[in-house]
Amino acid sequence: MKPYEGEMSLDLEQMKWDAAGLLPAVVQDAAGEVLMVAYMNRQALTETLETGYGTYYSRSRKTMWRKGESSGNRQRVLEIRVDCDLDCIVMKVEQIGGACHTGYYSCFYRKIEDGRVKIVAEPVFDADAVYQKA
Amino acid sequence: MKPYEGEMSLDLEQMKWDAAGLLPAVVQDAAGEVLMVAYMNRQALTETLETGYGTYYSRSRKTMWRKGESSGNRQRVLEIRVDCDLDCIVMKVEQIGGACHTGYYSCFYRKIEDGRVKIVAEPVFDADAVYQKA
Repeated sequence: MKPYEGEMSLDLEQMKWDAAGLLPAVVQDAAGEVLMVAYMNRQALTETLETGYGTYYSRSRKTMWRKGESSGNRQRVLEIRVDCDLDCIVMKVEQIGGACHTGYYSCFYRKIEDGRVKIVAEPVFDADAVYQKA
Repeated sequence: MKPYEGEMSLDLEQMKWDAAGLLPAVVQDAAGEVLMVAYMNRQALTETLETGYGTYYSRSRKTMWRKGESSGNRQRVLEIRVDCDLDCIVMKVEQIGGACHTGYYSCFYRKIEDGRVKIVAEPVFDADAVYQKA
């Protein structure tokens, strides 16, 4: 898989994984709203392609992260794009519930404007209830 | 600036810069198409806010990257969002020309589908002419 060429087979080894074996994945909905940015390793991208649901590697928990496994807020993949340098993914998904662990639909619920940081969205689910259940 | 709270002042020192002093910035157009993912350091974010044009830090060239300075393909900032963890930016811009150094409007001009990588866009400018002029 060489950049800038026409159609070719997907070869995970040609992707430019960083020193930790990861690459960033931008996740947006069908309308273009960016929901989150997460990281994938080879296994996460492979699982995402095989299952059709957004799967990542959690850098904080150092483990595979099957988004929505505990919260139910899964992401059904609609389209996957790869960039010119083969070091980044953009994925369009159908987001069940909300993407953000704080209860918002998108992690990007705050705008920077005039030196201020302002919340510009409303929560769509109760994060305490979803993430702290027994 | 604490996460999850209401309106607050922007404090660059509260942003979660990585070990290299960077954070990823997703750049999309007003319609939601993701154009590129680049990296910002404190100076790049400050310049972006002050000038209103997309400014980044080039990890390959190890220098400030005032997008469009040589190509003319500048990015006028329409909106800046920050995520729940304060470690990522999403920026809506008006893209002059194309964002990608290969001549495409977006760096994400290839789709991954059925084990294949397929170009799904047409170039919008002649990259050789734009980037290799004397």
